[in-house]
Amino acid sequence: MTSSDLEQLDIQPLTKARFAPFGTVIETGGATQIGINQGTTIRFDAMAGVDVTAGDGTPIISLFRGTRRPDPIEIHLLERHPLGSQAFMPLSQHDWLVVVAHGNAAGDAPDFSTLACFRATGEQGVSYDRGIWHHPLLVLQPVQDFLVIDRQGEGHNLDEVWHDGPAALINP
Amino acid sequence: MTSSDLEQLDIQPLTKARFAPFGTVIETGGATQIGINQGTTIRFDAMAGVDVTAGDGTPIISLFRGTRRPDPIEIHLLERHPLGSQAFMPLSQHDWLVVVAHGNAAGDAPDFSTLACFRATGEQGVSYDRGIWHHPLLVLQPVQDFLVIDRQGEGHNLDEVWHDGPAALINP
Repeated sequence: MTSSDLEQLDIQPLTKARFAPFGTVIETGGATQIGINQGTTIRFDAMAGVDVTAGDGTPIISLFRGTRRPDPIEIHLLERHPLGSQAFMPLSQHDWLVVVAHGNAAGDAPDFSTLACFRATGEQGVSYDRGIWHHPLLVLQPVQDFLVIDRQGEGHNLDEVWHDGPAALINP
Repeated sequence: MTSSDLEQLDIQPLTKARFAPFGTVIETGGATQIGINQGTTIRFDAMAGVDVTAGDGTPIISLFRGTRRPDPIEIHLLERHPLGSQAFMPLSQHDWLVVVAHGNAAGDAPDFSTLACFRATGEQGVSYDRGIWHHPLLVLQPVQDFLVIDRQGEGHNLDEVWHDGPAALINP
Protein backbone atom coordinates (compact mmCIF):
# COMPACT_ATOMS: atom_id res chain seq x y z
CA MET A 1 0.00 0.00 0.00
CA THR A 2 1.41 3.40 -0.88
CA SER A 3 0.88 6.43 1.26
CA SER A 4 -1.53 7.81 -1.32
CA ASP A 5 -3.90 4.96 -0.46
CA LEU A 6 -3.93 5.87 3.19
CA GLU A 7 -6.85 7.54 4.83
CA GLN A 8 -6.22 11.18 5.60
CA LEU A 9 -7.85 11.98 8.91
CA ASP A 10 -10.14 14.99 9.03
CA ILE A 11 -9.03 17.46 11.68
CA GLN A 12 -12.05 18.57 13.67
CA PRO A 13 -12.10 21.45 16.14
CA LEU A 14 -11.97 20.07 19.68
CA THR A 15 -15.25 20.50 21.57
CA LYS A 16 -16.58 19.03 24.79
CA ALA A 17 -19.38 17.29 22.89
CA ARG A 18 -17.12 15.65 20.32
CA PHE A 19 -14.61 14.56 22.95
CA ALA A 20 -17.12 13.30 25.52
CA PRO A 21 -16.74 9.59 24.61
CA PHE A 22 -13.02 9.82 25.29
CA GLY A 23 -12.65 12.13 28.28
CA THR A 24 -12.85 15.76 29.28
CA VAL A 25 -11.81 18.95 27.53
CA ILE A 26 -10.03 21.14 30.09
CA GLU A 27 -11.15 24.68 29.32
CA THR A 28 -12.73 27.64 31.04
CA GLY A 29 -15.74 27.67 28.72
CA GLY A 30 -18.72 26.20 30.51
CA ALA A 31 -16.90 25.84 33.85
CA THR A 32 -18.44 27.01 37.11
CA GLN A 33 -16.95 30.39 38.00
CA ILE A 34 -16.37 31.23 41.66
CA GLY A 35 -15.06 34.58 42.86
CA ILE A 36 -12.35 34.05 45.51
CA ASN A 37 -9.31 35.73 47.09
CA GLN A 38 -11.03 38.95 48.18
CA GLY A 39 -12.48 39.38 44.70
CA THR A 40 -9.12 39.31 42.91
CA THR A 41 -9.39 35.80 41.43
CA ILE A 42 -11.91 33.80 39.44
CA ARG A 43 -11.80 30.07 40.09
CA PHE A 44 -12.96 28.04 37.07
CA ASP A 45 -13.81 25.09 39.23
CA ALA A 46 -13.19 21.40 38.63
CA MET A 47 -12.71 21.58 34.87
CA ALA A 48 -11.64 17.93 35.11
CA GLY A 49 -11.31 15.21 37.69
CA VAL A 50 -8.27 12.98 38.14
CA ASP A 51 -8.91 9.22 38.29
CA VAL A 52 -5.64 7.56 39.26
CA THR A 53 -6.15 5.81 42.59
CA ALA A 54 -6.73 2.31 41.20
CA GLY A 55 -4.33 -0.11 42.84
CA ASP A 56 -1.98 1.96 44.93
CA GLY A 57 -1.92 4.80 42.43
CA THR A 58 -1.29 8.39 43.40
CA PRO A 59 -1.46 11.54 41.26
CA ILE A 60 1.75 13.18 40.09
CA ILE A 61 2.49 16.36 38.16
CA SER A 62 4.98 16.09 35.30
CA LEU A 63 5.93 18.15 32.26
CA PHE A 64 6.00 16.75 28.72
CA ARG A 65 8.19 18.56 26.20
CA GLY A 66 6.99 17.42 22.79
CA THR A 67 8.73 17.95 19.44
CA ARG A 68 7.00 18.01 16.07
CA ARG A 69 6.98 14.88 13.92
CA PRO A 70 7.56 14.98 10.15
CA ASP A 71 4.70 15.91 7.78
CA PRO A 72 2.47 14.18 6.99
CA ILE A 73 2.10 12.67 10.45
CA GLU A 74 1.79 8.89 10.14
CA ILE A 75 -0.36 7.18 12.75
CA HIS A 76 1.36 3.90 13.57
CA LEU A 77 0.22 3.15 17.10
CA LEU A 78 -2.16 3.95 19.89
CA GLU A 79 -1.77 3.53 23.63
CA ARG A 80 -4.00 3.38 26.68
CA HIS A 81 -3.57 3.56 30.45
CA PRO A 82 -5.72 0.86 32.05
CA LEU A 83 -5.27 2.17 35.60
CA GLY A 84 -5.63 5.90 35.28
CA SER A 85 -6.72 9.06 33.54
CA GLN A 86 -4.05 11.26 31.96
CA ALA A 87 -4.46 15.02 31.63
CA PHE A 88 -2.50 17.35 29.32
CA MET A 89 -2.63 21.15 29.61
CA PRO A 90 -0.60 23.29 27.20
CA LEU A 91 1.83 25.73 28.81
CA SER A 92 2.02 27.92 25.70
CA GLN A 93 -0.68 29.40 23.54
CA HIS A 94 -0.28 27.15 20.51
CA ASP A 95 -2.62 24.65 18.89
CA TRP A 96 -1.93 20.92 19.14
CA LEU A 97 -3.53 17.68 17.96
CA VAL A 98 -5.45 14.97 19.80
CA VAL A 99 -5.96 11.55 18.17
CA VAL A 100 -8.19 8.88 19.71
CA ALA A 101 -10.07 5.73 18.75
CA HIS A 102 -12.66 3.42 20.22
CA GLY A 103 -11.67 -0.05 21.40
CA ASN A 104 -12.39 -3.19 19.42
CA ALA A 105 -15.13 -5.63 20.40
CA ALA A 106 -12.72 -7.85 22.32
CA GLY A 107 -11.57 -4.88 24.35
CA ASP A 108 -7.90 -5.66 23.85
CA ALA A 109 -6.93 -3.28 21.05
CA PRO A 110 -8.07 -0.09 19.33
CA ASP A 111 -10.33 -0.19 16.30
CA PHE A 112 -8.16 1.82 13.92
CA SER A 113 -11.16 2.33 11.60
CA THR A 114 -12.58 4.68 14.26
CA LEU A 115 -9.59 7.03 14.46
CA ALA A 116 -10.57 10.64 15.13
CA CYS A 117 -8.35 13.72 15.12
CA PHE A 118 -9.10 16.96 16.95
CA ARG A 119 -7.31 20.29 16.82
CA ALA A 120 -7.04 21.80 20.30
CA THR A 121 -6.22 25.44 20.90
CA GLY A 122 -3.47 26.57 23.24
CA GLU A 123 -6.17 27.22 25.84
CA GLN A 124 -7.58 23.70 25.70
CA GLY A 125 -6.25 20.69 27.55
CA VAL A 126 -7.69 17.19 27.60
CA SER A 127 -7.98 14.47 30.18
CA TYR A 128 -8.12 11.04 28.60
CA ASP A 129 -10.37 8.77 30.62
CA ARG A 130 -8.83 5.61 32.01
CA GLY A 131 -8.49 2.99 29.27
CA ILE A 132 -9.08 5.32 26.30
CA TRP A 133 -6.94 4.60 23.24
CA HIS A 134 -5.01 7.69 22.22
CA HIS A 135 -1.98 8.65 20.21
CA PRO A 136 1.15 9.95 21.96
CA LEU A 137 1.50 13.73 22.13
CA LEU A 138 1.29 15.55 18.77
CA VAL A 139 2.48 19.15 18.69
CA LEU A 140 2.50 21.65 15.83
CA GLN A 141 5.29 23.97 16.91
CA PRO A 142 8.89 22.75 16.88
CA VAL A 143 8.68 22.33 20.67
CA GLN A 144 5.68 22.62 23.01
CA ASP A 145 5.42 22.06 26.77
CA PHE A 146 2.45 20.52 28.60
CA LEU A 147 1.66 20.02 32.24
CA VAL A 148 0.61 16.40 32.72
CA ILE A 149 -1.34 14.95 35.64
CA ASP A 150 -1.34 11.18 35.69
CA ARG A 151 -0.74 8.11 37.82
CA GLN A 152 2.29 6.88 39.71
CA GLY A 153 2.23 3.43 41.28
CA GLU A 154 2.64 -0.27 40.80
CA GLY A 155 0.65 -2.22 38.24
CA HIS A 156 0.32 -2.49 34.48
CA ASN A 157 -0.68 0.96 33.26
CA LEU A 158 0.44 1.07 29.62
CA ASP A 159 -0.85 -0.88 26.63
CA GLU A 160 0.62 -0.02 23.23
CA VAL A 161 -0.74 -1.43 19.96
CA TRP A 162 1.09 -0.96 16.67
CA HIS A 163 -0.79 -1.07 13.36
CA ASP A 164 0.63 -3.13 10.52
CA GLY A 165 2.11 -0.14 8.72
CA PRO A 166 0.68 3.36 8.99
CA ALA A 167 -3.05 3.35 9.76
CA ALA A 168 -3.72 6.92 8.61
CA LEU A 169 -2.10 10.23 7.78
CA ILE A 170 -2.60 13.71 9.16
CA ASN A 171 -1.75 16.84 7.21
CA PRO A 172 -1.90 19.57 9.84
CA MET B 1 0.71 52.63 62.78
CA THR B 2 1.33 54.25 59.44
CA SER B 3 2.32 52.29 56.38
CA SER B 4 5.85 53.68 56.64
CA ASP B 5 6.28 51.69 59.86
CA LEU B 6 5.39 48.45 58.14
CA GLU B 7 7.92 45.83 57.30
CA GLN B 8 8.69 45.65 53.62
CA LEU B 9 9.20 42.04 52.68
CA ASP B 10 12.33 41.16 50.76
CA ILE B 11 11.52 39.42 47.50
CA GLN B 12 13.79 36.40 47.09
CA PRO B 13 14.17 34.35 43.91
CA LEU B 14 12.18 31.12 44.26
CA THR B 15 14.39 28.04 44.60
CA LYS B 16 13.73 24.47 45.64
CA ALA B 17 15.97 24.86 48.67
CA ARG B 18 14.33 28.04 49.96
CA PHE B 19 10.83 26.67 49.40
CA ALA B 20 11.46 23.18 50.82
CA PRO B 21 9.88 23.90 54.24
CA PHE B 22 6.64 24.90 52.53
CA GLY B 23 6.26 22.53 49.60
CA THR B 24 7.61 21.80 46.15
CA VAL B 25 8.75 24.05 43.32
CA ILE B 26 7.28 22.65 40.10
CA GLU B 27 9.99 23.12 37.49
CA THR B 28 11.96 21.09 34.98
CA GLY B 29 15.30 21.90 36.60
CA GLY B 30 16.49 18.90 38.56
CA ALA B 31 13.63 16.65 37.43
CA THR B 32 14.25 13.14 36.15
CA GLN B 33 14.12 13.22 32.33
CA ILE B 34 12.68 10.22 30.49
CA GLY B 35 12.59 9.93 26.70
CA ILE B 36 9.16 8.67 25.58
CA ASN B 37 6.79 8.66 22.60
CA GLN B 38 9.21 7.18 20.06
CA GLY B 39 11.84 9.71 21.04
CA THR B 40 9.67 12.76 20.32
CA THR B 41 8.93 13.73 23.92
CA ILE B 42 10.88 14.31 27.12
CA ARG B 43 8.96 13.51 30.28
CA PHE B 44 10.15 15.58 33.26
CA ASP B 45 8.81 13.07 35.70
CA ALA B 46 6.94 13.63 38.94
CA MET B 47 7.97 17.23 39.51
CA ALA B 48 5.42 17.21 42.36
CA GLY B 49 3.06 14.83 44.07
CA VAL B 50 -0.58 15.58 44.88
CA ASP B 51 -1.70 14.91 48.46
CA VAL B 52 -5.47 15.31 48.54
CA THR B 53 -7.00 11.99 49.49
CA ALA B 54 -7.50 12.74 53.21
CA GLY B 55 -11.13 12.12 54.12
CA ASP B 56 -12.96 11.36 50.90
CA GLY B 57 -10.90 13.86 48.92
CA THR B 58 -10.21 13.50 45.22
CA PRO B 59 -7.94 15.57 42.97
CA ILE B 60 -9.48 18.12 40.62
CA ILE B 61 -8.05 20.39 37.96
CA SER B 62 -9.19 24.01 38.00
CA LEU B 63 -8.00 27.31 36.53
CA PHE B 64 -7.39 30.43 38.62
CA ARG B 65 -7.54 33.76 36.80
CA GLY B 66 -5.81 36.27 39.07
CA THR B 67 -5.80 40.05 38.78
CA ARG B 68 -3.13 42.34 40.16
CA ARG B 69 -3.68 44.05 43.51
CA PRO B 70 -2.76 47.72 44.12
CA ASP B 71 0.85 48.70 44.89
CA PRO B 72 2.26 48.33 47.44
CA ILE B 73 0.67 44.95 48.09
CA GLU B 74 -0.57 44.81 51.69
CA ILE B 75 -0.45 41.44 53.39
CA HIS B 76 -3.58 41.19 55.51
CA LEU B 77 -4.23 37.47 55.75
CA LEU B 78 -2.93 33.99 55.21
CA GLU B 79 -4.78 30.78 54.56
CA ARG B 80 -4.09 27.06 54.75
CA HIS B 81 -5.74 23.87 53.53
CA PRO B 82 -5.67 21.30 56.35
CA LEU B 83 -6.75 18.41 54.14
CA GLY B 84 -4.75 18.79 51.00
CA SER B 85 -1.88 20.12 48.96
CA GLN B 86 -2.58 22.82 46.38
CA ALA B 87 -0.51 23.21 43.23
CA PHE B 88 -0.30 26.29 40.99
CA MET B 89 1.33 26.25 37.55
CA PRO B 90 1.43 29.44 35.46
CA LEU B 91 -0.13 29.19 31.99
CA SER B 92 1.77 32.21 30.70
CA GLN B 93 5.43 33.13 30.85
CA HIS B 94 5.21 35.86 33.48
CA ASP B 95 6.68 36.15 36.96
CA TRP B 96 4.42 35.96 40.00
CA LEU B 97 4.78 36.11 43.80
CA VAL B 98 4.54 33.45 46.48
CA VAL B 99 4.10 34.47 50.14
CA VAL B 100 4.23 31.95 52.98
CA ALA B 101 4.79 31.78 56.72
CA HIS B 102 5.42 29.19 59.39
CA GLY B 103 2.70 28.31 61.88
CA ASN B 104 2.66 29.57 65.46
CA ALA B 105 3.54 27.35 68.40
CA ALA B 106 -0.10 26.49 69.07
CA GLY B 107 -0.51 25.37 65.47
CA ASP B 108 -3.72 27.31 64.99
CA ALA B 109 -2.50 30.43 63.17
CA PRO B 110 0.43 31.70 61.12
CA ASP B 111 3.35 33.46 62.75
CA PHE B 112 3.28 36.67 60.73
CA SER B 113 6.81 37.52 61.91
CA THR B 114 8.04 34.67 59.67
CA LEU B 115 6.50 35.95 56.43
CA ALA B 116 8.62 35.18 53.35
CA CYS B 117 8.10 36.35 49.77
CA PHE B 118 9.46 34.59 46.68
CA ARG B 119 9.45 35.71 43.07
CA ALA B 120 8.61 32.79 40.77
CA THR B 121 9.29 32.87 37.06
CA GLY B 122 6.63 32.00 34.49
CA GLU B 123 8.20 28.55 34.24
CA GLN B 124 7.91 27.83 37.97
CA GLY B 125 4.87 26.54 39.75
CA VAL B 126 4.54 25.63 43.40
CA SER B 127 2.70 22.98 45.35
CA TYR B 128 1.91 24.09 48.87
CA ASP B 129 2.09 21.16 51.24
CA ARG B 130 -1.03 20.35 53.20
CA GLY B 131 -1.46 22.79 56.08
CA ILE B 132 1.09 25.37 54.92
CA TRP B 133 0.10 29.00 55.54
CA HIS B 134 0.19 30.96 52.29
CA HIS B 135 -1.18 34.13 50.82
CA PRO B 136 -3.85 33.98 48.13
CA LEU B 137 -2.58 34.23 44.53
CA LEU B 138 -0.42 37.30 43.78
CA VAL B 139 0.17 38.15 40.14
CA LEU B 140 2.25 40.89 38.55
CA GLN B 141 0.54 41.27 35.19
CA PRO B 142 -2.96 42.76 35.02
CA VAL B 143 -4.34 39.22 34.55
CA GLN B 144 -2.57 35.84 34.81
CA ASP B 145 -3.95 32.31 34.52
CA PHE B 146 -2.80 29.29 36.53
CA LEU B 147 -3.67 25.63 36.38
CA VAL B 148 -4.52 24.50 39.91
CA ILE B 149 -4.57 20.93 41.21
CA ASP B 150 -6.21 20.62 44.60
CA ARG B 151 -8.79 18.74 46.63
CA GLN B 152 -12.52 18.24 46.19
CA GLY B 153 -14.49 16.57 48.94
CA GLU B 154 -16.26 16.93 52.25
CA GLY B 155 -14.53 18.25 55.33
CA HIS B 156 -13.01 21.49 56.59
CA ASN B 157 -10.24 22.39 54.14
CA LEU B 158 -9.82 26.15 54.52
CA ASP B 159 -8.52 28.17 57.47
CA GLU B 160 -8.14 31.90 56.99
CA VAL B 161 -6.43 34.17 59.54
CA TRP B 162 -6.55 37.95 59.24
CA HIS B 163 -3.87 40.12 60.79
CA ASP B 164 -4.90 43.16 62.84
CA GLY B 165 -4.22 45.62 60.02
CA PRO B 166 -1.61 45.01 57.33
CA ALA B 167 1.19 42.72 58.52
CA ALA B 168 3.70 43.72 55.83
CA LEU B 169 4.07 45.38 52.45
CA ILE B 170 5.49 44.17 49.17
CA ASN B 171 6.84 46.52 46.52
CA PRO B 172 7.18 44.27 43.45
